[in-house]
Amino acid sequence: MRYDFGSDNTAGMVPSAVEGLIRANSGHVPAYGRDEITERAADQIRQRVDADAEVRFVFSGTAANAIALSMLAFPFEAVLAHNAAHVCTDETGAPGFFGQGVGLIGLPGFSGRIDPLALRAQLAEPEVAHRQPPAALSVTQATEYGTVYTEEELRQLIEPVKALGYGVHMDGARLANAAAAGFDLKDIPRLGVDILVFGGAKAGANCAEAVVLFDKSLARRFDNRLKQAGQVASKARLLAGPMLGLLESGDWESGGAHANLMARRLADGIVTRSRFVLAHPVESNAVFVRMSNDAHARLNAAGWACYQFDDGSVRFVCSWATTEEVVDELLEAISAIS
Amino acid sequence: MRYDFGSDNTAGMVPSAVEGLIRANSGHVPAYGRDEITERAADQIRQRVDADAEVRFVFSGTAANAIALSMLAFPFEAVLAHNAAHVCTDETGAPGFFGQGVGLIGLPGFSGRIDPLALRAQLAEPEVAHRQPPAALSVTQATEYGTVYTEEELRQLIEPVKALGYGVHMDGARLANAAAAGFDLKDIPRLGVDILVFGGAKAGANCAEAVVLFDKSLARRFDNRLKQAGQVASKARLLAGPMLGLLESGDWESGGAHANLMARRLADGIVTRSRFVLAHPVESNAVFVRMSNDAHARLNAAGWACYQFDDGSVRFVCSWATTEEVVDELLEAISAIS
Amino acid sequence: MRYDFGSDNTAGMVPSAVEGLIRANSGHVPAYGRDEITERAADQIRQRVDADAEVRFVFSGTAANAIALSMLAFPFEAVLAHNAAHVCTDETGAPGFFGQGVGLIGLPGFSGRIDPLALRAQLAEPEVAHRQPPAALSVTQATEYGTVYTEEELRQLIEPVKALGYGVHMDGARLANAAAAGFDLKDIPRLGVDILVFGGAKAGANCAEAVVLFDKSLARRFDNRLKQAGQVASKARLLAGPMLGLLESGDWESGGAHANLMARRLADGIVTRSRFVLAHPVESNAVFVRMSNDAHARLNAAGWACYQFDDGSVRFVCSWATTEEVVDELLEAISAIS
Amino acid sequence: MRYDFGSDNTAGMVPSAVEGLIRANSGHVPAYGRDEITERAADQIRQRVDADAEVRFVFSGTAANAIALSMLAFPFEAVLAHNAAHVCTDETGAPGFFGQGVGLIGLPGFSGRIDPLALRAQLAEPEVAHRQPPAALSVTQATEYGTVYTEEELRQLIEPVKALGYGVHMDGARLANAAAAGFDLKDIPRLGVDILVFGGAKAGANCAEAVVLFDKSLARRFDNRLKQAGQVASKARLLAGPMLGLLESGDWESGGAHANLMARRLADGIVTRSRFVLAHPVESNAVFVRMSNDAHARLNAAGWACYQFDDGSVRFVCSWATTEEVVDELLEAISAIS
Repeated sequence: MRYDFGSDNTAGMVPSAVEGLIRANSGHVPAYGRDEITERAADQIRQRVDADAEVRFVFSGTAANAIALSMLAFPFEAVLAHNAAHVCTDETGAPGFFGQGVGLIGLPGFSGRIDPLALRAQLAEPEVAHRQPPAALSVTQATEYGTVYTEEELRQLIEPVKALGYGVHMDGARLANAAAAGFDLKDIPRLGVDILVFGGAKAGANCAEAVVLFDKSLARRFDNRLKQAGQVASKARLLAGPMLGLLESGDWESGGAHANLMARRLADGIVTRSRFVLAHPVESNAVFVRMSNDAHARLNAAGWACYQFDDGSVRFVCSWATTEEVVDELLEAISAIS
Repeated sequence: MRYDFGSDNTAGMVPSAVEGLIRANSGHVPAYGRDEITERAADQIRQRVDADAEVRFVFSGTAANAIALSMLAFPFEAVLAHNAAHVCTDETGAPGFFGQGVGLIGLPGFSGRIDPLALRAQLAEPEVAHRQPPAALSVTQATEYGTVYTEEELRQLIEPVKALGYGVHMDGARLANAAAAGFDLKDIPRLGVDILVFGGAKAGANCAEAVVLFDKSLARRFDNRLKQAGQVASKARLLAGPMLGLLESGDWESGGAHANLMARRLADGIVTRSRFVLAHPVESNAVFVRMSNDAHARLNAAGWACYQFDDGSVRFVCSWATTEEVVDELLEAISAIS
Repeated sequence: MRYDFGSDNTAGMVPSAVEGLIRANSGHVPAYGRDEITERAADQIRQRVDADAEVRFVFSGTAANAIALSMLAFPFEAVLAHNAAHVCTDETGAPGFFGQGVGLIGLPGFSGRIDPLALRAQLAEPEVAHRQPPAALSVTQATEYGTVYTEEELRQLIEPVKALGYGVHMDGARLANAAAAGFDLKDIPRLGVDILVFGGAKAGANCAEAVVLFDKSLARRFDNRLKQAGQVASKARLLAGPMLGLLESGDWESGGAHANLMARRLADGIVTRSRFVLAHPVESNAVFVRMSNDAHARLNAAGWACYQFDDGSVRFVCSWATTEEVVDELLEAISAIS
Repeated sequence: MRYDFGSDNTAGMVPSAVEGLIRANSGHVPAYGRDEITERAADQIRQRVDADAEVRFVFSGTAANAIALSMLAFPFEAVLAHNAAHVCTDETGAPGFFGQGVGLIGLPGFSGRIDPLALRAQLAEPEVAHRQPPAALSVTQATEYGTVYTEEELRQLIEPVKALGYGVHMDGARLANAAAAGFDLKDIPRLGVDILVFGGAKAGANCAEAVVLFDKSLARRFDNRLKQAGQVASKARLLAGPMLGLLESGDWESGGAHANLMARRLADGIVTRSRFVLAHPVESNAVFVRMSNDAHARLNAAGWACYQFDDGSVRFVCSWATTEEVVDELLEAISAIS
């Protein structure tokens, strides 16, 4: 089976990340993040978002998101998110686990973008003691269906939420792809995001994500929180080293751009060379295709791992490691079953 | 400041672990542990403990221990552990967080070993509804004070616990050092341990520990449990790869042996070349020294990072990366302040 | 404002419950449930369900349900329930709080009854690590929309669930009304229910519900669990006393029957004396009426507290304390706005 | 067996509380605390503490304390309390359950009073990420050993804690006894207590405690919090009614004074009529007696239920219901075995 398009974490680390790891590995340094590599990697992120934020590296996006949400909502409150968001559908209830029952309120919206009217309607609901009222908004950039919010679209979601004093979390597992699609990272703090999860793994690092706290009041005893949650690396430089390599080299950006380009090539090929229809606009590194169960099965049988999503479409994901050749091979296979 | 003896996680990865990582990094493979590297690394561990156990790789010893304890005790129960055990003193209450309030009952005992009489006395306490009764025992091998339980010592702790139907967890963060000191890993399932945390990070891997389930009834939906807890690696091969390199090369064992040898050299030097007294028997890779606050401060001032423990002694830890030269340098410094 | 039909907990205690409380109040007795009143009240319940079950009295249905669900599903699992069930919509996420994130999977079905086909479809879903798979079923008898499952309907829900080894919880907040509608309580253990919440408050007790454990393996250290959860009454006889009065007098049954009769009178009157339509079959003590927002507002303005439900209908609830006179007064008011 | 002195919750409700309950029971009123009885009972408490506090009635002191602590400390923080405090020893780890692992740091001090030097020493400890740093102080008034803090003693504990911005919880399960011993309830907010648990059950109510929030910023969505925690009474008036009767009649105060007087009579009798020694100063309603296990067993055998505490002494508790006659009977029995 070929996993090239199964997910963006079926690829390994970018060479610059491997080099960053090897460089970070030498000598004896303090543990638990009090080393220079970790600091430099955090600086790289601060520069990108142009803010004096607190930055910590953790192992897992699931944990990063769940911890972030537990910082923005009490157990008796809820977080608003797109009903196809990773926190709602793919993290085994981690927000409830880390947040001791914190609720999720799923919102509709085309192609992974939250519908601002649905959000406003939810915010206008009267509060009652027997339900979990919203306390925060979670947005995903790029979204689960590969679309990318514009600054204005985000503002329409974030403003009414902030007006109520609620918090905002951004799941940036594919932030590199959103950036490559034109999203300006400096808008993140300007728009009022309180906690950003800055994605490393899908961008070509090892299993590493950065939790970025723009609201410094949330940072009190944050290391205690992360330690208790099992998300502090003893050999922290091995977590930060690949990120540093990826960020200093610019490969975080160029890998995202390459992945998007490959997705565009794939999408164009599907439109021109098959009878299949795209399920969502292709704005970043994923291509969703309307395909019968039978066609999907034949594609799997032909050796291509790919998965059906909740909307019924089949997803193909590109990464820094996707080559034109493999895109063309896949297009050949898709054509053949079309 | 020099961190060579500050902890065993101030060193980086062993070269064979780095090579294992690089080998694991190539190509596209399935995510979330369904890859061949992960399977081979698990096999390496199953061979060592001679048991058909379920093995999963996680990022953090704190999480591994806390998840294990939450599998053996309900929130309204408690875990028996040495009162100097890492789960009691150094994990920011992670067992209570992952176990929603699961209690810890600290037991006394010299040099990190649980006193079997204290354990039996605790087990004999009448149960009342307003306290958390014990449901499991946690043992650390090698212990927090660097001693190593014999098989017979462990049997004396585990037998009365198993006789009551309680579970047993072994924290093996320094299992490589215990093995090098003569502890037979095949005794672990034979003695009745239910869950072992098989240490990687301190043995020269990256941030990776293996959770080994001997009691297969605990394994049901274990992947769901780990995913929810933020301890499933998307790029699992990058977690397992260094472990595989370390285990296939035999460096897991030889690194542990080397660390123990260096600790022996350091201990012998302290006894012969200083007026300081050892606080605990040196049986693995750590040396605890009785030292005044003033002497400790002077050693720090001389550039050597080392920490005072709860028993008042100062700890020096050796690892696979400790050289004879640096041991001798430290001895020089210790002599000078003695 | 008149609260007679607002809920079944706007009424006070039945006289026999008050008498039971006063009888229970005299003298000094052991605390925490080790008294004779508590034992006798438990016996009354055991007789009704014809089973040697463990019975404990707790203060709150929300807690009773949430604790029950936390006993049947791990945090990384989920409970299947009707999407209008009280546990899903009216308990502020208590299952997630007591169960540290345990999930709820809402199922459709007319008038509060779970659709057995929807249940089977859910049970047939393939398990994946990134979602919370079902571990238990929660049924409500009588349902949130006042309907009452037949034995056969329950069997169709429970059998496929038990076949997979999953647990079953019954929320019996209105069990007295279901019993009065013909549901045989002795079927509860026969059908395979593991944990029943036997309702007291809505039946005319004070704030008291009984947790009934048919699966005795769940009873281990149950008092510790309840104590930790803040659901052990120090003066336990004051919790059990009203229940005992209610049960020994037979008022638990006759109050339920009376409430159902009053609901029938109300429903018949609405059909014959107004243009409003009933939203659900009237099988127990609640009447749901399709009514415009405007009509609802006029009824409120006329002094009758009543609430709109998620399905848009307006609910009127009868209790042991509802009189024919007040039903007729309400009918007058409804007619007037019709 | 006679339970008169076993605890202060072996007595029933004071007559005025029963009357309050019966008065509260009539008619239909809104559920969940939006009734006039609940409001009036809250007013009674606000008058006593002379503060415009938020007041809610809950069922259980264990829950009240645990919820309070979860409002003052995050899971990765800890609460400072006397190591004999009820929250530390008698609530089955409820703070950890409600607070998802929140820690308890036990402090020493004679006869249940926290030693202010021990407190200051703990506050001066350097913070590290791998431990749970203190975030709040819990004081018990009267203490677990029946002593009563003076205003000045409390100030010495509370001031350094508030100076660090930490919160303060007061467990007032026996506040009526402390008040009868001269403690001025109006000092509670003046001293800086943030959350008071105002005891009802031990003072002669049913199972009812009031949570009093002086820090109004904690009150946001407090009803949601309590509902989720299973501590909102549907028939709230039945919880508040007995409290109202107790408070309006002044029996809350006079019952506490009577209990203290009976304890004094018992203590004096023991000193003069037996060879037993008092273990702690008798300042409220409990008498702790140094007694051999054998003497304790003989007293039990003579029909008097009484319990040994962690300090080895045997406790006798008086309540509003304790009569001079029964005190004298007990003294007879104690003399006989002396």
